[in-house]
Amino acid sequence: MNERVTAQPADAGPLAVICGGGSLPFAVADAVTKRGRRAVLFAIQGWADPERIAAYPHHWASFGRFGWFCRVARAEGCRDVVFIGSLVRPPIWQLRPDLKTLRLLPRIFRIFRGGDDHLLSGIASIFEEHGFRLMGAHEIAPEILMPEGALGREHPSRRDLADIAKGLALLNATSSFDIGQAAVVADGRVIAIEAAEGTDAMLSRVAQLRRSGQLEQVSRRGVLIKAAKLEQDRRLDLPSIGPQTVEGAKRAGLAGIAATAGSTIVANPDRIGATADHERLFVVGVRETG
Amino acid sequence: MNERVTAQPADAGPLAVICGGGSLPFAVADAVTKRGRRAVLFAIQGWADPERIAAYPHHWASFGRFGWFCRVARAEGCRDVVFIGSLVRPPIWQLRPDLKTLRLLPRIFRIFRGGDDHLLSGIASIFEEHGFRLMGAHEIAPEILMPEGALGREHPSRRDLADIAKGLALLNATSSFDIGQAAVVADGRVIAIEAAEGTDAMLSRVAQLRRSGQLEQVSRRGVLIKAAKLEQDRRLDLPSIGPQTVEGAKRAGLAGIAATAGSTIVANPDRIGATADHERLFVVGVRETG
Repeated sequence: MNERVTAQPADAGPLAVICGGGSLPFAVADAVTKRGRRAVLFAIQGWADPERIAAYPHHWASFGRFGWFCRVARAEGCRDVVFIGSLVRPPIWQLRPDLKTLRLLPRIFRIFRGGDDHLLSGIASIFEEHGFRLMGAHEIAPEILMPEGALGREHPSRRDLADIAKGLALLNATSSFDIGQAAVVADGRVIAIEAAEGTDAMLSRVAQLRRSGQLEQVSRRGVLIKAAKLEQDRRLDLPSIGPQTVEGAKRAGLAGIAATAGSTIVANPDRIGATADHERLFVVGVRETG
Repeated sequence: MNERVTAQPADAGPLAVICGGGSLPFAVADAVTKRGRRAVLFAIQGWADPERIAAYPHHWASFGRFGWFCRVARAEGCRDVVFIGSLVRPPIWQLRPDLKTLRLLPRIFRIFRGGDDHLLSGIASIFEEHGFRLMGAHEIAPEILMPEGALGREHPSRRDLADIAKGLALLNATSSFDIGQAAVVADGRVIAIEAAEGTDAMLSRVAQLRRSGQLEQVSRRGVLIKAAKLEQDRRLDLPSIGPQTVEGAKRAGLAGIAATAGSTIVANPDRIGATADHERLFVVGVRETG
Protein backbone atom coordinates (compact mmCIF):
# COMPACT_ATOMS: atom_id res chain seq x y z
CA MET A 1 0.00 0.00 0.00
CA ASN A 2 1.24 3.44 -0.80
CA GLU A 3 -1.03 5.31 1.56
CA ARG A 4 0.14 8.53 3.04
CA VAL A 5 -1.30 9.77 6.26
CA THR A 6 -1.14 13.53 6.19
CA ALA A 7 -1.82 15.92 8.98
CA GLN A 8 -4.65 18.30 8.14
CA PRO A 9 -4.03 21.47 10.09
CA ALA A 10 -6.82 24.01 10.12
CA ASP A 11 -4.45 26.49 8.45
CA ALA A 12 -4.02 24.32 5.35
CA GLY A 13 -6.60 26.54 3.66
CA PRO A 14 -9.75 25.41 1.93
CA LEU A 15 -9.86 22.09 0.13
CA ALA A 16 -10.57 22.07 -3.61
CA VAL A 17 -12.88 19.12 -4.34
CA ILE A 18 -13.05 18.32 -8.05
CA CYS A 19 -16.40 16.59 -8.35
CA GLY A 20 -17.42 13.83 -10.70
CA GLY A 21 -20.80 12.14 -10.52
CA GLY A 22 -22.54 10.35 -7.67
CA SER A 23 -22.73 11.18 -3.99
CA LEU A 24 -19.10 10.66 -2.98
CA PRO A 25 -18.04 14.29 -3.57
CA PHE A 26 -20.68 15.46 -1.12
CA ALA A 27 -19.67 12.85 1.46
CA VAL A 28 -16.10 14.15 1.26
CA ALA A 29 -17.20 17.80 1.42
CA ASP A 30 -19.41 17.07 4.44
CA ALA A 31 -16.64 15.19 6.25
CA VAL A 32 -14.19 18.05 5.66
CA THR A 33 -16.68 20.72 6.68
CA LYS A 34 -17.46 18.78 9.87
CA ARG A 35 -13.80 19.13 10.78
CA GLY A 36 -14.04 22.89 10.41
CA ARG A 37 -12.28 23.14 7.06
CA ARG A 38 -13.84 24.95 4.13
CA ALA A 39 -14.45 22.87 0.98
CA VAL A 40 -14.73 24.53 -2.42
CA LEU A 41 -16.34 22.26 -4.98
CA PHE A 42 -15.30 22.30 -8.65
CA ALA A 43 -18.24 20.60 -10.31
CA ILE A 44 -17.41 18.93 -13.61
CA GLN A 45 -20.06 19.75 -16.17
CA GLY A 46 -21.93 16.69 -17.32
CA TRP A 47 -20.92 14.67 -14.26
CA ALA A 48 -21.52 16.50 -10.99
CA ASP A 49 -25.07 16.51 -9.65
CA PRO A 50 -26.37 20.09 -10.23
CA GLU A 51 -29.11 19.84 -7.60
CA ARG A 52 -26.89 18.71 -4.78
CA ILE A 53 -23.98 20.98 -5.71
CA ALA A 54 -26.13 24.09 -5.11
CA ALA A 55 -25.88 23.64 -1.33
CA TYR A 56 -22.08 24.00 -1.36
CA PRO A 57 -19.61 26.74 -2.28
CA HIS A 58 -18.88 25.74 -5.86
CA HIS A 59 -17.69 26.63 -9.35
CA TRP A 60 -18.64 24.85 -12.54
CA ALA A 61 -15.60 23.38 -14.25
CA SER A 62 -14.98 21.51 -17.45
CA PHE A 63 -12.24 19.39 -18.94
CA GLY A 64 -9.66 21.38 -20.78
CA ARG A 65 -9.82 24.47 -18.57
CA PHE A 66 -6.80 23.81 -16.43
CA GLY A 67 -5.55 27.41 -16.64
CA TRP A 68 -8.92 28.60 -15.38
CA PHE A 69 -8.85 26.05 -12.56
CA CYS A 70 -5.39 27.18 -11.43
CA ARG A 71 -6.53 30.81 -11.28
CA VAL A 72 -9.81 30.18 -9.46
CA ALA A 73 -8.40 27.62 -7.01
CA ARG A 74 -5.53 29.97 -6.11
CA ALA A 75 -7.94 32.88 -5.69
CA GLU A 76 -9.95 30.68 -3.29
CA GLY A 77 -6.73 29.99 -1.37
CA CYS A 78 -6.82 26.24 -2.11
CA ARG A 79 -3.59 24.31 -2.16
CA ASP A 80 -4.91 20.82 -1.48
CA VAL A 81 -6.92 19.16 -4.23
CA VAL A 82 -9.08 16.04 -4.15
CA PHE A 83 -10.56 14.30 -7.18
CA ILE A 84 -13.66 12.36 -6.33
CA GLY A 85 -16.74 10.85 -7.95
CA SER A 86 -17.48 8.82 -11.00
CA LEU A 87 -15.89 9.99 -14.18
CA VAL A 88 -15.37 8.40 -17.52
CA ARG A 89 -12.22 9.46 -19.30
CA PRO A 90 -13.39 12.10 -21.76
CA PRO A 91 -12.86 11.55 -25.47
CA ILE A 92 -9.75 13.61 -26.06
CA TRP A 93 -11.27 15.24 -29.14
CA GLN A 94 -14.00 16.75 -27.02
CA LEU A 95 -11.59 18.78 -24.91
CA ARG A 96 -12.00 22.53 -25.39
CA PRO A 97 -8.61 23.57 -24.12
CA ASP A 98 -7.79 26.95 -22.63
CA LEU A 99 -4.31 28.34 -23.26
CA LYS A 100 -2.50 26.52 -20.46
CA THR A 101 -4.24 23.27 -21.31
CA LEU A 102 -3.30 23.80 -24.95
CA ARG A 103 0.37 24.04 -23.99
CA LEU A 104 0.03 20.87 -21.93
CA LEU A 105 -1.78 19.03 -24.74
CA PRO A 106 1.15 16.99 -26.09
CA ARG A 107 1.76 15.70 -22.58
CA ILE A 108 -1.95 15.11 -21.88
CA PHE A 109 -2.14 13.29 -25.17
CA ARG A 110 0.66 10.95 -24.15
CA ILE A 111 -0.96 10.43 -20.75
CA PHE A 112 -4.29 9.54 -22.35
CA ARG A 113 -2.59 6.97 -24.54
CA GLY A 114 -1.51 4.95 -21.53
CA GLY A 115 -3.61 2.87 -19.16
CA ASP A 116 -5.59 4.20 -16.23
CA ASP A 117 -2.60 4.30 -13.92
CA HIS A 118 -0.65 6.41 -16.36
CA LEU A 119 -3.61 8.73 -16.78
CA LEU A 120 -3.89 9.25 -13.06
CA SER A 121 -0.24 9.62 -12.13
CA GLY A 122 0.28 11.87 -15.15
CA ILE A 123 -2.54 14.14 -14.05
CA ALA A 124 -1.25 14.11 -10.47
CA SER A 125 2.18 15.36 -11.52
CA ILE A 126 0.67 18.13 -13.67
CA PHE A 127 -1.25 19.42 -10.66
CA GLU A 128 1.78 19.22 -8.40
CA GLU A 129 3.99 21.10 -10.83
CA HIS A 130 1.47 23.92 -10.64
CA GLY A 131 1.78 24.22 -6.87
CA PHE A 132 -1.16 22.06 -5.82
CA ARG A 133 -1.03 19.04 -3.59
CA LEU A 134 -3.14 16.18 -4.85
CA MET A 135 -4.58 14.19 -1.97
CA GLY A 136 -6.58 11.03 -1.68
CA ALA A 137 -10.16 11.20 -0.42
CA HIS A 138 -9.17 8.51 2.08
CA GLU A 139 -6.53 10.83 3.53
CA ILE A 140 -8.95 13.72 3.83
CA ALA A 141 -11.88 11.70 5.11
CA PRO A 142 -10.89 8.24 6.34
CA GLU A 143 -14.46 7.69 7.56
CA ILE A 144 -15.55 7.10 3.95
CA LEU A 145 -13.39 3.95 3.70
CA MET A 146 -14.97 0.52 3.85
CA PRO A 147 -14.59 -1.00 7.33
CA GLU A 148 -13.91 -4.68 7.94
CA GLY A 149 -16.98 -6.84 8.46
CA ALA A 150 -20.63 -6.66 7.40
CA LEU A 151 -22.37 -3.32 6.93
CA GLY A 152 -25.87 -4.72 7.37
CA ARG A 153 -27.53 -7.74 8.93
CA GLU A 154 -26.72 -10.29 6.21
CA HIS A 155 -23.50 -12.29 6.20
CA PRO A 156 -21.78 -14.35 3.49
CA SER A 157 -22.33 -18.11 3.60
CA ARG A 158 -19.47 -20.57 3.37
CA ARG A 159 -20.13 -20.83 -0.38
CA ASP A 160 -20.05 -17.04 -0.69
CA LEU A 161 -16.74 -16.94 1.19
CA ALA A 162 -15.25 -19.37 -1.34
CA ASP A 163 -16.48 -17.15 -4.19
CA ILE A 164 -14.96 -14.11 -2.46
CA ALA A 165 -11.60 -15.86 -2.07
CA LYS A 166 -11.62 -16.82 -5.75
CA GLY A 167 -12.53 -13.28 -6.79
CA LEU A 168 -9.77 -11.74 -4.69
CA ALA A 169 -7.23 -14.18 -6.13
CA LEU A 170 -8.38 -13.32 -9.67
CA LEU A 171 -8.19 -9.57 -9.03
CA ASN A 172 -4.70 -10.05 -7.56
CA ALA A 173 -3.68 -11.85 -10.74
CA THR A 174 -5.00 -9.07 -12.99
CA SER A 175 -3.88 -6.23 -10.73
CA SER A 176 -0.72 -5.48 -12.67
CA PHE A 177 -2.68 -5.12 -15.91
CA ASP A 178 -4.19 -1.83 -14.91
CA ILE A 179 -7.84 -2.72 -15.37
CA GLY A 180 -11.03 -2.11 -13.44
CA GLN A 181 -10.80 -4.11 -10.27
CA ALA A 182 -14.11 -5.90 -9.99
CA ALA A 183 -15.42 -9.36 -10.82
CA VAL A 184 -18.49 -11.51 -10.28
CA VAL A 185 -17.97 -15.09 -9.09
CA ALA A 186 -20.84 -17.52 -8.53
CA ASP A 187 -20.51 -21.10 -7.30
CA GLY A 188 -16.79 -21.02 -8.01
CA ARG A 189 -17.25 -19.82 -11.57
CA VAL A 190 -16.02 -16.43 -12.79
CA ILE A 191 -19.05 -14.87 -14.48
CA ALA A 192 -17.73 -11.42 -15.36
CA ILE A 193 -14.59 -9.32 -15.12
CA GLU A 194 -14.67 -5.56 -15.31
CA ALA A 195 -12.39 -3.65 -17.64
CA ALA A 196 -13.33 -0.34 -19.27
CA GLU A 197 -17.10 -0.68 -18.90
CA GLY A 198 -17.34 0.01 -15.16
CA THR A 199 -18.96 -1.91 -12.32
CA ASP A 200 -22.57 -0.90 -12.99
CA ALA A 201 -22.34 -2.01 -16.64
CA MET A 202 -20.74 -5.29 -15.58
CA LEU A 203 -23.59 -5.96 -13.14
CA SER A 204 -26.15 -5.18 -15.88
CA ARG A 205 -24.39 -7.73 -18.07
CA VAL A 206 -24.72 -10.40 -15.39
CA ALA A 207 -28.42 -9.54 -14.98
CA GLN A 208 -28.82 -9.87 -18.75
CA LEU A 209 -27.01 -13.25 -18.82
CA ARG A 210 -29.43 -14.47 -16.14
CA ARG A 211 -32.51 -13.15 -17.96
CA SER A 212 -31.44 -14.76 -21.24
CA GLY A 213 -30.85 -18.12 -19.58
CA GLN A 214 -27.11 -18.13 -20.36
CA LEU A 215 -26.65 -18.30 -16.62
CA GLU A 216 -28.80 -20.25 -14.25
CA GLN A 217 -31.62 -18.18 -12.82
CA VAL A 218 -30.96 -19.13 -9.23
CA SER A 219 -31.22 -15.92 -7.24
CA ARG A 220 -28.97 -14.85 -4.37
CA ARG A 221 -26.07 -16.75 -5.78
CA GLY A 222 -22.69 -15.24 -6.47
CA VAL A 223 -20.74 -12.27 -5.21
CA LEU A 224 -19.51 -8.96 -6.61
CA ILE A 225 -15.90 -8.58 -5.50
CA LYS A 226 -14.18 -5.20 -5.60
CA ALA A 227 -10.53 -4.65 -4.76
CA ALA A 228 -8.05 -1.82 -5.03
CA LYS A 229 -5.17 -2.45 -7.36
CA LEU A 230 -2.09 -3.44 -5.44
CA GLU A 231 0.15 -0.74 -6.84
CA GLN A 232 -2.22 2.01 -7.77
CA ASP A 233 -1.96 5.63 -6.77
CA ARG A 234 -4.68 5.68 -4.14
CA ARG A 235 -5.02 9.41 -4.28
CA LEU A 236 -7.00 9.15 -7.46
CA ASP A 237 -8.55 5.86 -8.09
CA LEU A 238 -9.92 3.94 -5.16
CA PRO A 239 -12.83 1.68 -6.06
CA SER A 240 -16.13 2.71 -4.53
CA ILE A 241 -19.52 1.23 -3.80
CA GLY A 242 -22.80 3.06 -3.37
CA PRO A 243 -26.49 2.26 -3.09
CA GLN A 244 -26.66 1.81 -6.88
CA THR A 245 -24.00 -0.92 -6.57
CA VAL A 246 -26.23 -2.78 -4.10
CA GLU A 247 -29.23 -2.37 -6.40
CA GLY A 248 -27.19 -3.53 -9.39
CA ALA A 249 -26.03 -6.59 -7.45
CA LYS A 250 -29.64 -7.31 -6.53
CA ARG A 251 -30.76 -7.11 -10.18
CA ALA A 252 -27.86 -9.42 -11.11
CA GLY A 253 -29.28 -11.98 -8.68
CA LEU A 254 -26.21 -11.96 -6.45
CA ALA A 255 -26.00 -12.90 -2.78
CA GLY A 256 -23.85 -9.93 -1.88
CA ILE A 257 -20.85 -7.66 -2.27
CA ALA A 258 -17.34 -7.95 -0.87
CA ALA A 259 -14.96 -5.00 -0.99
CA THR A 260 -11.44 -4.64 0.36
CA ALA A 261 -11.55 -2.91 3.74
CA GLY A 262 -9.52 0.29 4.04
CA SER A 263 -9.13 0.66 0.29
CA THR A 264 -12.68 0.89 -1.02
CA ILE A 265 -14.75 4.03 -0.63
CA VAL A 266 -18.25 3.72 0.72
CA ALA A 267 -19.79 7.17 0.93
CA ASN A 268 -22.49 6.43 3.45
CA PRO A 269 -22.01 3.08 5.23
CA ASP A 270 -25.29 3.38 7.17
CA ARG A 271 -27.28 3.97 4.02
CA ILE A 272 -25.52 1.13 2.21
CA GLY A 273 -26.22 -1.14 5.17
CA ALA A 274 -29.91 -0.16 5.12
CA THR A 275 -30.17 -0.71 1.35
CA ALA A 276 -28.43 -4.07 1.73
CA ASP A 277 -30.82 -5.11 4.50
CA HIS A 278 -33.80 -4.02 2.40
CA GLU A 279 -32.55 -6.04 -0.58
CA ARG A 280 -31.42 -8.89 1.69
CA LEU A 281 -27.88 -8.82 0.34
CA PHE A 282 -24.70 -8.83 2.34
CA VAL A 283 -22.09 -6.09 1.98
CA VAL A 284 -18.85 -7.02 3.65
CA GLY A 285 -15.40 -5.46 4.01
CA VAL A 286 -12.67 -8.07 3.61
CA ARG A 287 -8.89 -8.00 4.04
CA GLU A 288 -6.91 -7.55 0.86
CA THR A 289 -4.69 -10.55 1.41
CA GLY A 290 -6.99 -13.49 1.90
CA MET B 1 -0.52 -28.87 -23.81
CA ASN B 2 -2.26 -32.14 -23.43
CA GLU B 3 -2.78 -32.82 -27.11
CA ARG B 4 -3.03 -36.37 -28.26
CA VAL B 5 -2.28 -37.31 -31.82
CA THR B 6 -4.40 -40.27 -32.67
CA ALA B 7 -4.27 -42.48 -35.70
CA GLN B 8 -7.56 -42.47 -37.57
CA PRO B 9 -7.78 -45.79 -39.37
CA ALA B 10 -10.60 -46.16 -41.86
CA ASP B 11 -11.95 -49.03 -39.76
CA ALA B 12 -12.52 -46.81 -36.72
CA GLY B 13 -16.16 -46.65 -37.79
CA PRO B 14 -18.19 -43.53 -38.38
CA LEU B 15 -17.54 -40.41 -36.33
CA ALA B 16 -20.37 -39.01 -34.19
CA VAL B 17 -20.29 -35.23 -34.46
CA ILE B 18 -22.39 -33.55 -31.76
CA CYS B 19 -23.20 -30.22 -33.36
CA GLY B 20 -23.68 -26.86 -31.66
CA GLY B 21 -24.21 -23.65 -33.59
CA GLY B 22 -22.14 -22.00 -36.31
CA SER B 23 -20.26 -23.50 -39.22
CA LEU B 24 -17.55 -25.42 -37.36
CA PRO B 25 -19.51 -28.70 -37.18
CA PHE B 26 -19.80 -28.74 -40.98
CA ALA B 27 -16.11 -27.94 -41.42
CA VAL B 28 -15.26 -30.94 -39.24
CA ALA B 29 -17.76 -33.19 -41.02
CA ASP B 30 -16.39 -32.14 -44.42
CA ALA B 31 -12.79 -32.73 -43.37
CA VAL B 32 -13.63 -36.19 -42.05
CA THR B 33 -15.68 -37.12 -45.12
CA LYS B 34 -12.82 -35.99 -47.37
CA ARG B 35 -10.64 -38.58 -45.67
CA GLY B 36 -13.15 -41.27 -46.53
CA ARG B 37 -14.69 -41.63 -43.08
CA ARG B 38 -18.41 -41.38 -42.54
CA ALA B 39 -19.63 -38.63 -40.20
CA VAL B 40 -22.99 -38.89 -38.43
CA LEU B 41 -24.17 -35.54 -37.14
CA PHE B 42 -26.15 -35.22 -33.89
CA ALA B 43 -27.70 -31.79 -34.25
CA ILE B 44 -28.54 -30.12 -30.95
CA GLN B 45 -31.99 -28.58 -31.13
CA GLY B 46 -31.89 -24.84 -30.77
CA TRP B 47 -28.24 -24.64 -31.72
CA ALA B 48 -27.37 -26.55 -34.88
CA ASP B 49 -28.19 -24.87 -38.19
CA PRO B 50 -31.25 -26.76 -39.58
CA GLU B 51 -30.66 -25.69 -43.20
CA ARG B 52 -27.07 -26.80 -43.40
CA ILE B 53 -27.60 -29.98 -41.39
CA ALA B 54 -29.99 -31.32 -44.04
CA ALA B 55 -27.10 -32.09 -46.40
CA TYR B 56 -25.49 -34.54 -43.94
CA PRO B 57 -26.48 -37.85 -42.36
CA HIS B 58 -27.96 -36.58 -39.11
CA HIS B 59 -30.22 -37.05 -36.10
CA TRP B 60 -31.81 -34.30 -34.04
CA ALA B 61 -30.64 -34.45 -30.43
CA SER B 62 -31.40 -32.52 -27.30
CA PHE B 63 -29.86 -32.05 -23.88
CA GLY B 64 -30.99 -34.60 -21.39
CA ARG B 65 -31.37 -37.48 -23.83
CA PHE B 66 -28.10 -39.23 -23.14
CA GLY B 67 -29.70 -42.69 -23.10
CA TRP B 68 -31.15 -42.03 -26.54
CA PHE B 69 -27.78 -40.81 -27.79
CA CYS B 70 -26.01 -43.96 -26.56
CA ARG B 71 -28.53 -46.19 -28.39
CA VAL B 72 -28.53 -44.28 -31.68
CA ALA B 73 -24.76 -43.72 -31.80
CA ARG B 74 -24.12 -47.41 -31.11
CA ALA B 75 -26.65 -48.41 -33.78
CA GLU B 76 -24.76 -46.18 -36.20
CA GLY B 77 -21.53 -47.95 -35.24
CA CYS B 78 -19.94 -44.81 -33.81
CA ARG B 79 -17.33 -45.11 -31.12
CA ASP B 80 -15.51 -41.81 -31.58
CA VAL B 81 -17.38 -38.66 -30.59
CA VAL B 82 -16.58 -35.03 -31.27
CA PHE B 83 -18.32 -32.05 -29.67
CA ILE B 84 -18.14 -28.98 -31.85
CA GLY B 85 -19.83 -25.64 -32.39
CA SER B 86 -21.08 -22.86 -30.20
CA LEU B 87 -23.11 -23.86 -27.21
CA VAL B 88 -24.19 -22.07 -24.11
CA ARG B 89 -24.47 -24.22 -21.04
CA PRO B 90 -28.17 -24.99 -20.79
CA PRO B 91 -30.08 -23.93 -17.69
CA ILE B 92 -30.18 -27.15 -15.73
CA TRP B 93 -33.89 -26.76 -14.99
CA GLN B 94 -34.66 -26.91 -18.68
CA LEU B 95 -33.22 -30.41 -19.10
CA ARG B 96 -35.87 -32.97 -20.01
CA PRO B 97 -33.97 -36.04 -18.94
CA ASP B 98 -34.50 -39.53 -20.31
CA LEU B 99 -34.03 -42.44 -17.91
CA LYS B 100 -30.26 -42.76 -18.20
CA THR B 101 -29.81 -39.02 -17.89
CA LEU B 102 -32.09 -39.04 -14.87
CA ARG B 103 -29.82 -41.55 -13.15
CA LEU B 104 -26.80 -39.39 -14.00
CA LEU B 105 -28.51 -36.22 -12.77
CA PRO B 106 -26.85 -35.95 -9.34
CA ARG B 107 -23.48 -36.17 -11.06
CA ILE B 108 -24.46 -33.78 -13.86
CA PHE B 109 -25.72 -31.41 -11.21
CA ARG B 110 -22.35 -31.43 -9.47
CA ILE B 111 -20.57 -30.95 -12.79
CA PHE B 112 -22.73 -27.95 -13.68
CA ARG B 113 -21.91 -26.34 -10.36
CA GLY B 114 -18.22 -26.18 -11.23
CA GLY B 115 -16.44 -23.99 -13.73
CA ASP B 116 -16.22 -24.61 -17.45
CA ASP B 117 -13.29 -26.99 -17.11
CA HIS B 118 -15.19 -29.12 -14.65
CA LEU B 119 -18.21 -29.14 -16.92
CA LEU B 120 -16.17 -30.37 -19.83
CA SER B 121 -14.00 -32.96 -18.14
CA GLY B 122 -17.03 -34.24 -16.25
CA ILE B 123 -18.96 -34.71 -19.48
CA ALA B 124 -15.94 -36.35 -21.11
CA SER B 125 -15.70 -39.00 -18.42
CA ILE B 126 -19.45 -39.76 -18.64
CA PHE B 127 -19.10 -40.45 -22.36
CA GLU B 128 -16.02 -42.58 -21.85
CA GLU B 129 -17.65 -44.70 -19.17
CA HIS B 130 -20.34 -45.51 -21.72
CA GLY B 131 -17.85 -46.89 -24.21
CA PHE B 132 -17.33 -43.82 -26.37
CA ARG B 133 -14.05 -42.11 -27.07
CA LEU B 134 -14.27 -38.36 -26.85
CA MET B 135 -11.89 -36.73 -29.31
CA GLY B 136 -10.86 -33.18 -30.04
CA ALA B 137 -11.83 -31.60 -33.34
CA HIS B 138 -8.16 -30.70 -33.74
CA GLU B 139 -7.23 -34.40 -33.59
CA ILE B 140 -9.86 -35.35 -36.15
CA ALA B 141 -9.26 -32.44 -38.51
CA PRO B 142 -5.99 -30.60 -37.80
CA GLU B 143 -6.58 -28.46 -40.88
CA ILE B 144 -9.14 -26.45 -38.92
CA LEU B 145 -6.49 -25.15 -36.50
CA MET B 146 -5.19 -21.61 -36.77
CA PRO B 147 -1.81 -21.52 -38.57
CA GLU B 148 1.01 -19.19 -37.58
CA GLY B 149 1.10 -15.88 -39.46
CA ALA B 150 -1.47 -13.67 -41.18
CA LEU B 151 -4.53 -15.18 -42.87
CA GLY B 152 -5.11 -12.20 -45.16
CA ARG B 153 -3.16 -9.30 -46.58
CA GLU B 154 -3.16 -7.07 -43.49
CA HIS B 155 -0.49 -7.34 -40.81
CA PRO B 156 -0.28 -6.02 -37.24
CA SER B 157 1.65 -2.80 -36.71
CA ARG B 158 4.27 -2.44 -34.02
CA ARG B 159 1.60 -0.91 -31.76
CA ASP B 160 -0.71 -3.84 -32.47
CA LEU B 161 2.09 -6.27 -31.60
CA ALA B 162 2.50 -4.56 -28.23
CA ASP B 163 -1.25 -4.88 -27.62
CA ILE B 164 -1.10 -8.56 -28.59
CA ALA B 165 1.78 -9.19 -26.18
CA LYS B 166 -0.13 -7.49 -23.36
CA GLY B 167 -3.28 -9.47 -24.15
CA LEU B 168 -1.42 -12.79 -24.17
CA ALA B 169 0.23 -11.95 -20.85
CA LEU B 170 -3.17 -11.08 -19.36
CA LEU B 171 -4.78 -14.27 -20.63
CA ASN B 172 -1.85 -16.26 -19.22
CA ALA B 173 -2.45 -14.61 -15.84
CA THR B 174 -6.16 -15.46 -15.87
CA SER B 175 -5.72 -18.90 -17.43
CA SER B 176 -5.91 -20.81 -14.14
CA PHE B 177 -9.24 -19.13 -13.29
CA ASP B 178 -11.15 -21.12 -15.85
CA ILE B 179 -12.74 -18.22 -17.72
CA GLY B 180 -13.33 -17.38 -21.36
CA GLN B 181 -9.98 -16.77 -22.92
CA ALA B 182 -10.36 -13.55 -24.85
CA ALA B 183 -9.59 -9.88 -24.26
CA VAL B 184 -9.49 -6.60 -26.14
CA VAL B 185 -6.42 -4.39 -25.71
CA ALA B 186 -6.05 -1.00 -27.39
CA ASP B 187 -3.03 1.28 -27.10
CA GLY B 188 -1.74 -0.70 -24.16
CA ARG B 189 -5.03 -0.47 -22.28
CA VAL B 190 -7.17 -3.51 -21.47
CA ILE B 191 -10.65 -2.57 -22.70
CA ALA B 192 -12.55 -5.80 -22.08
CA ILE B 193 -12.07 -9.29 -20.70
CA GLU B 194 -14.38 -12.13 -21.58
CA ALA B 195 -15.90 -14.34 -18.91
CA ALA B 196 -19.33 -15.98 -19.24
CA GLU B 197 -20.71 -13.66 -21.93
CA GLY B 198 -18.72 -15.02 -24.89
CA THR B 199 -16.52 -13.32 -27.47
CA ASP B 200 -19.28 -11.89 -29.66
CA ALA B 201 -20.98 -10.23 -26.67
CA MET B 202 -17.64 -8.83 -25.50
CA LEU B 203 -17.01 -7.31 -28.95
CA SER B 204 -20.51 -5.77 -28.94
CA ARG B 205 -19.69 -4.20 -25.58
CA VAL B 206 -16.53 -2.62 -26.99
CA ALA B 207 -18.53 -1.30 -29.97
CA GLN B 208 -21.05 0.16 -27.50
CA LEU B 209 -18.30 1.78 -25.39
CA ARG B 210 -17.00 3.44 -28.56
CA ARG B 211 -20.43 4.62 -29.67
CA SER B 212 -21.20 6.10 -26.27
CA GLY B 213 -17.91 7.98 -26.18
CA GLN B 214 -16.61 6.06 -23.15
CA LEU B 215 -13.79 4.97 -25.41
CA GLU B 216 -12.14 7.11 -28.00
CA GLN B 217 -13.71 6.74 -31.39
CA VAL B 218 -10.46 6.19 -33.24
CA SER B 219 -11.09 3.33 -35.63
CA ARG B 220 -8.72 0.47 -36.39
CA ARG B 221 -7.19 0.66 -32.99
CA GLY B 222 -6.87 -2.26 -30.65
CA VAL B 223 -6.76 -6.02 -30.99
CA LEU B 224 -8.98 -8.94 -30.04
CA ILE B 225 -6.71 -11.58 -28.52
CA LYS B 226 -7.87 -15.18 -28.16
CA ALA B 227 -5.85 -17.89 -26.46
CA ALA B 228 -6.44 -21.45 -25.36
CA LYS B 229 -6.27 -22.00 -21.64
CA LEU B 230 -2.92 -23.47 -20.68
CA GLU B 231 -4.28 -26.51 -18.89
CA GLN B 232 -7.61 -27.08 -20.53
CA ASP B 233 -8.90 -30.30 -21.98
CA ARG B 234 -8.50 -29.46 -25.63
CA ARG B 235 -10.88 -32.16 -26.72
CA LEU B 236 -13.80 -30.01 -25.77
CA ASP B 237 -13.11 -26.39 -25.53
CA LEU B 238 -10.71 -24.86 -28.00
CA PRO B 239 -11.42 -21.21 -28.72
CA SER B 240 -12.58 -20.53 -32.25
CA ILE B 241 -12.88 -17.63 -34.64
CA GLY B 242 -15.20 -17.31 -37.59
CA PRO B 243 -16.36 -14.65 -40.04
CA GLN B 244 -18.72 -13.26 -37.37
CA THR B 245 -15.68 -12.70 -35.13
CA VAL B 246 -14.05 -10.61 -37.86
CA GLU B 247 -17.26 -8.64 -38.37
CA GLY B 248 -17.62 -8.14 -34.61
CA ALA B 249 -14.03 -6.90 -34.39
CA LYS B 250 -14.74 -4.50 -37.27
CA ARG B 251 -17.84 -3.10 -35.51
CA ALA B 252 -15.75 -2.69 -32.35
CA GLY B 253 -13.36 -0.50 -34.32
CA LEU B 254 -10.41 -2.83 -33.84
CA ALA B 255 -7.32 -3.16 -36.03
CA GLY B 256 -7.37 -6.93 -36.01
CA ILE B 257 -7.46 -10.30 -34.31
CA ALA B 258 -4.67 -12.43 -32.87
CA ALA B 259 -5.27 -16.07 -31.96
CA THR B 260 -2.89 -18.69 -30.65
CA ALA B 261 -1.67 -20.84 -33.53
CA GLY B 262 -2.30 -24.56 -33.21
CA SER B 263 -4.82 -24.13 -30.42
CA THR B 264 -7.55 -21.97 -31.95
CA ILE B 265 -10.06 -23.34 -34.38
CA VAL B 266 -10.67 -21.44 -37.59
CA ALA B 267 -13.23 -23.33 -39.65
CA ASN B 268 -12.43 -21.87 -43.02
CA PRO B 269 -9.12 -19.96 -43.09
CA ASP B 270 -9.57 -18.84 -46.71
CA ARG B 271 -12.96 -17.36 -45.99
CA ILE B 272 -11.71 -15.68 -42.80
CA GLY B 273 -8.79 -14.25 -44.76
CA ALA B 274 -11.16 -12.91 -47.42
CA THR B 275 -13.49 -11.37 -44.83
CA ALA B 276 -10.49 -9.82 -43.07
CA ASP B 277 -9.21 -8.35 -46.35
CA HIS B 278 -12.66 -7.00 -47.13
CA GLU B 279 -12.91 -5.36 -43.69
CA ARG B 280 -9.23 -4.34 -43.82
CA LEU B 281 -8.46 -6.07 -40.53
CA PHE B 282 -5.57 -8.38 -39.81
CA VAL B 283 -6.13 -11.91 -38.52
CA VAL B 284 -2.91 -13.44 -37.28
CA GLY B 285 -1.89 -16.71 -35.64
CA VAL B 286 0.64 -16.13 -32.87
CA ARG B 287 2.71 -18.44 -30.68
CA GLU B 288 1.30 -19.11 -27.25
CA THR B 289 4.44 -18.15 -25.38
CA GLY B 290 5.25 -14.64 -26.53
